[in-house]
Amino acid sequence: MQTPRVAWIGLGVMGSPMAENLIKAGYPVRGHTLEPEKLERLAAAGGTPAASVAEAVRGADVVVTMLPADPQVEAVVLGDDGVLAHTAPGTLLIDMSTVAPRTSAALAEAAAGRGVRVLDAPVSGGEAGAVEGVLSIMVGGAREDFDRAGPLFRALGTTVVHCGPHGAGQTVKAANQLVVAVNIQACAEAVVFLEKAGVDLPAALEVLGGGLAGSTVLERKKHNFLARDFAPGFRIDLHHKDMGIVTEAARAVGAAIPLGGVVAGLVAAARAQGDGGLDHSALLRGVERLSGAAT
Amino acid sequence: MQTPRVAWIGLGVMGSPMAENLIKAGYPVRGHTLEPEKLERLAAAGGTPAASVAEAVRGADVVVTMLPADPQVEAVVLGDDGVLAHTAPGTLLIDMSTVAPRTSAALAEAAAGRGVRVLDAPVSGGEAGAVEGVLSIMVGGAREDFDRAGPLFRALGTTVVHCGPHGAGQTVKAANQLVVAVNIQACAEAVVFLEKAGVDLPAALEVLGGGLAGSTVLERKKHNFLARDFAPGFRIDLHHKDMGIVTEAARAVGAAIPLGGVVAGLVAAARAQGDGGLDHSALLRGVERLSGAAT
Amino acid sequence: MQTPRVAWIGLGVMGSPMAENLIKAGYPVRGHTLEPEKLERLAAAGGTPAASVAEAVRGADVVVTMLPADPQVEAVVLGDDGVLAHTAPGTLLIDMSTVAPRTSAALAEAAAGRGVRVLDAPVSGGEAGAVEGVLSIMVGGAREDFDRAGPLFRALGTTVVHCGPHGAGQTVKAANQLVVAVNIQACAEAVVFLEKAGVDLPAALEVLGGGLAGSTVLERKKHNFLARDFAPGFRIDLHHKDMGIVTEAARAVGAAIPLGGVVAGLVAAARAQGDGGLDHSALLRGVERLSGAAT
Amino acid sequence: MQTPRVAWIGLGVMGSPMAENLIKAGYPVRGHTLEPEKLERLAAAGGTPAASVAEAVRGADVVVTMLPADPQVEAVVLGDDGVLAHTAPGTLLIDMSTVAPRTSAALAEAAAGRGVRVLDAPVSGGEAGAVEGVLSIMVGGAREDFDRAGPLFRALGTTVVHCGPHGAGQTVKAANQLVVAVNIQACAEAVVFLEKAGVDLPAALEVLGGGLAGSTVLERKKHNFLARDFAPGFRIDLHHKDMGIVTEAARAVGAAIPLGGVVAGLVAAARAQGDGGLDHSALLRGVERLSGAAT
Repeated sequence: MQTPRVAWIGLGVMGSPMAENLIKAGYPVRGHTLEPEKLERLAAAGGTPAASVAEAVRGADVVVTMLPADPQVEAVVLGDDGVLAHTAPGTLLIDMSTVAPRTSAALAEAAAGRGVRVLDAPVSGGEAGAVEGVLSIMVGGAREDFDRAGPLFRALGTTVVHCGPHGAGQTVKAANQLVVAVNIQACAEAVVFLEKAGVDLPAALEVLGGGLAGSTVLERKKHNFLARDFAPGFRIDLHHKDMGIVTEAARAVGAAIPLGGVVAGLVAAARAQGDGGLDHSALLRGVERLSGAAT
Repeated sequence: MQTPRVAWIGLGVMGSPMAENLIKAGYPVRGHTLEPEKLERLAAAGGTPAASVAEAVRGADVVVTMLPADPQVEAVVLGDDGVLAHTAPGTLLIDMSTVAPRTSAALAEAAAGRGVRVLDAPVSGGEAGAVEGVLSIMVGGAREDFDRAGPLFRALGTTVVHCGPHGAGQTVKAANQLVVAVNIQACAEAVVFLEKAGVDLPAALEVLGGGLAGSTVLERKKHNFLARDFAPGFRIDLHHKDMGIVTEAARAVGAAIPLGGVVAGLVAAARAQGDGGLDHSALLRGVERLSGAAT
Repeated sequence: MQTPRVAWIGLGVMGSPMAENLIKAGYPVRGHTLEPEKLERLAAAGGTPAASVAEAVRGADVVVTMLPADPQVEAVVLGDDGVLAHTAPGTLLIDMSTVAPRTSAALAEAAAGRGVRVLDAPVSGGEAGAVEGVLSIMVGGAREDFDRAGPLFRALGTTVVHCGPHGAGQTVKAANQLVVAVNIQACAEAVVFLEKAGVDLPAALEVLGGGLAGSTVLERKKHNFLARDFAPGFRIDLHHKDMGIVTEAARAVGAAIPLGGVVAGLVAAARAQGDGGLDHSALLRGVERLSGAAT
Repeated sequence: MQTPRVAWIGLGVMGSPMAENLIKAGYPVRGHTLEPEKLERLAAAGGTPAASVAEAVRGADVVVTMLPADPQVEAVVLGDDGVLAHTAPGTLLIDMSTVAPRTSAALAEAAAGRGVRVLDAPVSGGEAGAVEGVLSIMVGGAREDFDRAGPLFRALGTTVVHCGPHGAGQTVKAANQLVVAVNIQACAEAVVFLEKAGVDLPAALEVLGGGLAGSTVLERKKHNFLARDFAPGFRIDLHHKDMGIVTEAARAVGAAIPLGGVVAGLVAAARAQGDGGLDHSALLRGVERLSGAAT
């Protein structure tokens, strides 16, 4: 069987290294993005720059989109000169952007009318995971399309899981972002409480980390909390976008998320107070402000 | 240096195996509790049953208390016929109960007037940790008293950390319980959201556990969530008591705990709705009720 | 000046009596709705039934829409055979539905391209207010259009206020629904707390109502709380829709609404638990459930 | 029947004008407080200054306490040289301070042992209400004691209600403070939302005030919101104390107060951020901070 020709739309912080990993794995990749220097970088890595979506997707077997948010995905896929206008029936469209589950479902429905198969396949693991090809990939759509895309996914990540029908990948990503935000906020509340109570913070976090209170957040973000180092990392602006997706998706299925609702408000407040460009561990700054301990 | 004689007050689910671990480590232990069968168990393990607090503590070098809550600790230590009424100056009193930081500070102050040294040393790790001697022990009080108690603590636990002055151990325990409750609730919200959205739950939890959303709670309680198995474990009634301590202690030091406040309410509601005797992972049942998905 | 010819789209619980009040005030009204018996009722009141949106709006000077939610308004106004497709330049379109502020702004923008002026004019006061012509009307749009519609508004309501540009009427309605939901929930929490504490509830509510805790909610809904009479009234399903608008609108402008967020979750939970068809004072039932006091 | 001799303990902002209203009504009042100038003021009004609690209460038929918080009340009533040590059996002790319901119940129990009757009778209405004698008085205790104190209460307030057994007055006061805090916060959220959305705020508040969103808080505090005038009034520090009582009392009876819990946190945060000395309408400042709109 021939290696599929890949069109890649969206070569940002995540998309560029991901496309390059495909190239390294032997896939012919034709890529498009709005930033010229990213096209040059793609060419340097062995890919083929395309001047438009149309040029990128024409003749492709698989189209991957990796874009900032729902409006960009809808424009690129559904637009007059977009992906669906130029792909042949039988093409597989894999949207790896993080968008609302209902957006994924709507794309799949629109694509079905043109004989195009769709998977939603958002990722977690951040820029480092993208560069090293160790992302977690959560996939929604038909099982046979998931199987077909297996080799491609394995060039990008180490944990690749089929989660259910169209939108299921996005739903799992949303749940992931919910749990991460709550865990960060929980640690931030604990840190401020411990400091205000005059406790030896590093010692206390060591105990917490070793027991039932332990978490990957506590382990990976401990340094950020202790050093007040909030260089991103995953920016609060992006987590704010994701909490919007969580809130709407939970509302749509009638799932109560009392902590999720509160955290969504706290993330929004962090952004409103000017911390949108910082790493999400900077939720600590919001707790400090509420506690009168702002630096 | 001679092995210190230990008086142990409180031989419940935690206290009994802890006292037995001291006996195994070579300490002479005289114990008191209100349940006769626990006194017999102590004798069978090689300890000496005492008919009263007075009888237990007379002649002891170290007194350990392991009691349900603040009122019991205050009664046993400060009561007319209590620990302080019968201990000699120079005795070390180690309160391993989980109580409010201010209760620990008050005990230390009362004891200082009689020349008795005090450590607060609450534990985490549950009944299994107590039996196996692998508890985490969070200690508040003077460094030299902590050092003096080191061998004894190491007979009971594997992580033993000095956290700061009187009450600091309780503060860290409170922070621990805050983070644990929030993490359980976060997982419960994710579970109900994922199920209502029609996602493959075991697959989804596998992805979450492998990334930034991973936590010890998710790992250890995944089975409880998936099987709706809520046999305790750590009962909601006890976590409710602890959330009372967290709420008051955070308020006392002026630390904002927005998630902590919401979780305290949800734990209280779980108890009000009859789930007090279940494992704290049963917070899932509250989320299901709020989502109209109660079984 | 001639009395303007009015097209009225949407003759539901609110729309029917409102259209009839216009007829009584001397306006020629041609109305359309999907329910035949409502068209007969309109005819009986002196109006002219129309078989389609197109038939209703052709030749009208003013078009009023009073529809359930955003999708219906968008379909009726922007649809291929909708209001804008059939109205002449210079027509005034007044949308009295409760929709998102951004929907109102989008309608105004679409209409401007066709020379049609738009006002958003949601109301409060319920069915009784609609029947008696004593609604509060919150209006967004150009001041001159507001002035032009003044006589018509005064046939429908007693408080008619220009609140700002397009969408401002919806924004004020959203704020209204936020405050109402929070006030109902506050009273519900007080009621359950007072009852569980064994207090004489009618006496207590009398004191509360007479002081700074007094509110229109407490006054008008006291009977519902005391008698557990939750016949609508304003249904929780509708308040749920409105809380969705509030949540999104506050997020869009970066306004923190901590209580609004919690109440939105509680309203959603009430609906998920089967209370969607009850009056919004039935938020009391949710508090009772959380308190283990459900009947 | 002879006019009862009154001992009044606590002559602060509220206590002084209340005691003077009793004097005006013909009661002989012997008063004690720790501030000499307040004793002089009492003498100038026709009362009798007392140098100690003992001197004030000796020979009194009725003892009124009006003190800042639970510790002061406990010290004054239960202390070695306190009220109960010096009152004769049959005396009526009326505690008009705002304290926890359980404190009132404990006082009543202690007093019963000495044949002293007790009423808890906290007030609302503020300094103005105290001066003008138009307070609302919420009373807990035996009906016959309430009846006996009726004339005295009517010299102080216009709404005087018997709410139930010992502590019931405090419970109603707690519910009052819960509803007031939530209403203030609701208005504050609406104000910031409306302003950020670019709406005409005075017009909007006029509409809200006229409908189901109307409340005494909106009416009386509208000026504070519009002018950002936060001169007290009722200070956030005091409302913080009261929210502590609400939180504990609701927890004690197992009543869920989801909004109450969130508001308690927001009041605490306002205090932690330095607004404790401002009027409680300054909760608006907290919403502004969370919205990035702080001045």
